Amino acid sequence: MLSQALLLIRQPRKAIGWLGWKPPDLPQPLVRQLPRVIAPLGAIPQVRTAASRLAINYYAYATSPRPRALSMASDYTSWLSLTDRTFSGRHLPPATTRPEDLPSEAEVTALFRRDRETKSADTSVMFMFFAQWFTDSFLRTSRENFRKNTSPQEIDLCQIYGLGANKTSMLRAHEGGRLKSQLIDGEEYPPFLFEPRAPGGKLVFKPEFTGLHEEKFFTEKILADCPDARKDSVFAVGLEHGNSTIGHTILDAVFLREHNRIAGLLKGEHPDWDDVRLFETTRNIMIVLLLKLVVEEYIKHIGPFDFPIEVVPFIADGERWNRPNWGAIEFNLLYRWHSLVPDAIGEGSDQLKPRDFRNNNPLVISRGIEALITQCSRERSGKIGLLNTPYFLVDRSHPDDPSIEERSITLMRNARLRSYNDYREAFGLERLAGFDQLTTNKALRERLQSLYGDIDKLEWYVGIFAEEYPDYLMMGELMTTMVAHDAFTQALTNPLLARNVFNEQTFSKAGMRIITETHSLQQIIARNSTSPGDVHASFHCEQG
Amino acid sequence: MLSQALLLIRQPRKAIGWLGWKPPDLPQPLVRQLPRVIAPLGAIPQVRTAASRLAINYYAYATSPRPRALSMASDYTSWLSLTDRTFSGRHLPPATTRPEDLPSEAEVTALFRRDRETKSADTSVMFMFFAQWFTDSFLRTSRENFRKNTSPQEIDLCQIYGLGANKTSMLRAHEGGRLKSQLIDGEEYPPFLFEPRAPGGKLVFKPEFTGLHEEKFFTEKILADCPDARKDSVFAVGLEHGNSTIGHTILDAVFLREHNRIAGLLKGEHPDWDDVRLFETTRNIMIVLLLKLVVEEYIKHIGPFDFPIEVVPFIADGERWNRPNWGAIEFNLLYRWHSLVPDAIGEGSDQLKPRDFRNNNPLVISRGIEALITQCSRERSGKIGLLNTPYFLVDRSHPDDPSIEERSITLMRNARLRSYNDYREAFGLERLAGFDQLTTNKALRERLQSLYGDIDKLEWYVGIFAEEYPDYLMMGELMTTMVAHDAFTQALTNPLLARNVFNEQTFSKAGMRIITETHSLQQIIARNSTSPGDVHASFHCEQG
Repeated sequence: MLSQALLLIRQPRKAIGWLGWKPPDLPQPLVRQLPRVIAPLGAIPQVRTAASRLAINYYAYATSPRPRALSMASDYTSWLSLTDRTFSGRHLPPATTRPEDLPSEAEVTALFRRDRETKSADTSVMFMFFAQWFTDSFLRTSRENFRKNTSPQEIDLCQIYGLGANKTSMLRAHEGGRLKSQLIDGEEYPPFLFEPRAPGGKLVFKPEFTGLHEEKFFTEKILADCPDARKDSVFAVGLEHGNSTIGHTILDAVFLREHNRIAGLLKGEHPDWDDVRLFETTRNIMIVLLLKLVVEEYIKHIGPFDFPIEVVPFIADGERWNRPNWGAIEFNLLYRWHSLVPDAIGEGSDQLKPRDFRNNNPLVISRGIEALITQCSRERSGKIGLLNTPYFLVDRSHPDDPSIEERSITLMRNARLRSYNDYREAFGLERLAGFDQLTTNKALRERLQSLYGDIDKLEWYVGIFAEEYPDYLMMGELMTTMVAHDAFTQALTNPLLARNVFNEQTFSKAGMRIITETHSLQQIIARNSTSPGDVHASFHCEQG
Repeated sequence: MLSQALLLIRQPRKAIGWLGWKPPDLPQPLVRQLPRVIAPLGAIPQVRTAASRLAINYYAYATSPRPRALSMASDYTSWLSLTDRTFSGRHLPPATTRPEDLPSEAEVTALFRRDRETKSADTSVMFMFFAQWFTDSFLRTSRENFRKNTSPQEIDLCQIYGLGANKTSMLRAHEGGRLKSQLIDGEEYPPFLFEPRAPGGKLVFKPEFTGLHEEKFFTEKILADCPDARKDSVFAVGLEHGNSTIGHTILDAVFLREHNRIAGLLKGEHPDWDDVRLFETTRNIMIVLLLKLVVEEYIKHIGPFDFPIEVVPFIADGERWNRPNWGAIEFNLLYRWHSLVPDAIGEGSDQLKPRDFRNNNPLVISRGIEALITQCSRERSGKIGLLNTPYFLVDRSHPDDPSIEERSITLMRNARLRSYNDYREAFGLERLAGFDQLTTNKALRERLQSLYGDIDKLEWYVGIFAEEYPDYLMMGELMTTMVAHDAFTQALTNPLLARNVFNEQTFSKAGMRIITETHSLQQIIARNSTSPGDVHASFHCEQG
């Protein structure tokens, strides 16, 4: 009895499986009432902690824990496949389906193309920008070899600290524990990356940033779609794509401001600390703040009914899923939520079209962070699913340059992934018996049927985006399970959350206080704003 | 009740502590009888497994699990100290003792110097050679920076496979999954490293081995004490020090032969496998064979009464100590068992003096592996402790070149380690109240008393070698605890032993059979020998 009870806490999925329980199809009126029950329940600390532990373990034990036998290094287990994390991981062995038995890549790409935008139920465009900014830090496919990656494998805020100690050093002010920054009209931003130039002149990295990115690749490829007039305000930040949307720019600036604010605060409390110690301690705090936002605000929104899930202290401590992180190729692919991208943000004169919200630092500088975040938090994103990816991510902008979605599909094919149903089984879900269990959309069902013939042949990457789901979720059952599994088992293993580390020695007294008090992006933006009353930052957005 | 019982299995040290149990001082007649009881008990599989699990967890939970807050990267917790394993780990924060309050390094070095050799109770010289060969693979202090290391952090048999994929490739035959080798008088050895030369001519790496080691450093420093006539038979093996003793050479050759034997066997069973798959699968098997020998033969001998401890399948699976390996500076230092080295091996015309058993591949080739292993298995090593390190490891061979023991003491001081008593406390042992609890050797006690004044000031590195211990152990209580903790929690976390990996897919059917059937070095040597009847390989050596 005791051991069953223990099992329920430690391995809820297994226990629930034994009891024969399945998630019910809830009637709509009940679903609409649930948030009203869940919110007050979640406000009781003990309930919140217990439910968080249950939910985290439910997903963490959905499939067998790392180490996995295979990676993209080889189709059989080798020392490389067990130890070299520059090869991306893989959850399942390669498929044995012959390529000629699959639909063409063009046919699959066409399944994603948006005709008319479908809006999400309650997800804001701010969520989309955060998702992209967050995942760009650890989902990093190698440019040279699709089987490899350049991921730090940890959530380390490389967005503002750069990849590796050398680049961190370029971004540091080497004074007071701060990051380099500049004031533009009294607002703090990262420094500019390029030397000043005559209009239309050649772009040259400032000497202090030599090697921060690969210069030729950065100026020719990364900035290929950036209008020349906007290039002078490209910021020096940690990642190559750090200037690619207004979301990246806003979030980099917000986290930079918070870093420098905390560094100043620590300096006041520890006048004897040198620059390095101030910097390192601030970074420790910053990473935990990000982890808290990710679980308590971002994953909370992904989960059903926005239950206020929390970072349970030391939850990974005794768990079999607490094993070294190793990003899987499936995680890299399933996170390509291109359908979140809206056709436009807002209306009227403030409306932002793709050309406005991409590669546009001048807009951030002129409109200001507060106004843009508020606008993005009040606009619904697109709904995750097939037939809803905007044209500029599906169609080629240059005839020889595959689009973002085409590249995803090529990568999925190169990775030779097993079927949608195989992944359902591997993640503890029942195999579907037919396309009718996948979606009620008759036209889509018939299209999939004609492309694949058999539900067992449906490709995983297509299946996870084809899954229908209720409004209280924001993606299908398999994608929810896989994203939660990979996220929980790789975020909560962060060394800063471990028992020997998560304490006042690591963060300082002030740092512990900041960590305890911070629960939302809104707080962080407001306390770094010259007009805190003007900020509304939310991943949740009511239909209106 | 159930949870207490579970605790006894999962955390025996804690449970035993609660019961107030302490290891008793056993009367000598009883001690002498114990092996006669333990051997038949250990022969019962269930008893063996249960006792192994108990013993492994007893030591694994002796101190708090990784991740540790600090490494040698900084005196406070930083992202580098939590993630960059090229900085050696550390179990405890730096000492606060002022260097001027400690005895001089020369005085400490003198504590180690052997006057007359004290023999171990029952440890063979073969054990010593194995210990050195085994630990040279993962205890690798950086030459440039004492705070750093070049360890692979896993037991990966880099002794024969080299450090990293590039070097592995140089050592592979690229045919049949084999390693490069040569036959000398019908016996298989690694290839020679150097181009043939005129006597006394310049040493040049064969082109195929360019970059295997740093050429200048290798020929000038590593071979500094190697007589010129012996240099032509230096073998191309994985590690720089792979030719430094006859033990290294013998064990490299034995494991090379076993690799090529298994590769041939797999090729017969899997004619469709290419060279890479044959090589990688053989390596998987080889690493597990080494892990089995390490636990079931080597650690067994270190433990009390040679209880036949075993590699319990998946034992790390549910344990809090199953965290990424990270070699600590203390582990690196405590393993410097220089006092094991005897003044000579054997007697009469076969006697080997240090100049014979160091840097002497011609001896291995002429006498043969079987004869030398047998000789080394029949000779007792020195006893681990102070005042027992042979002159050539304590005294300088060149005036400007610190000796091996001097370098160890400098490293210990640079690492600013806390006191012996602080480490006892951290590893769950009681602090000693005085030098009389450390040793009954009156002269040594008085010397330590006069050097340190107070037992609480005794340096850890001196204390672990000063500890007196009974004949059924081979080192003191704290050193046994620390070496067992670090060994178990870093050997049994090997990915090849994990639940998703330890199976027929990883090793093949033949590989699983080999793994199951192999329990001793003796077996491995015999099955690769042209005269298997002539081999006696043992870490245990009766007084005679």
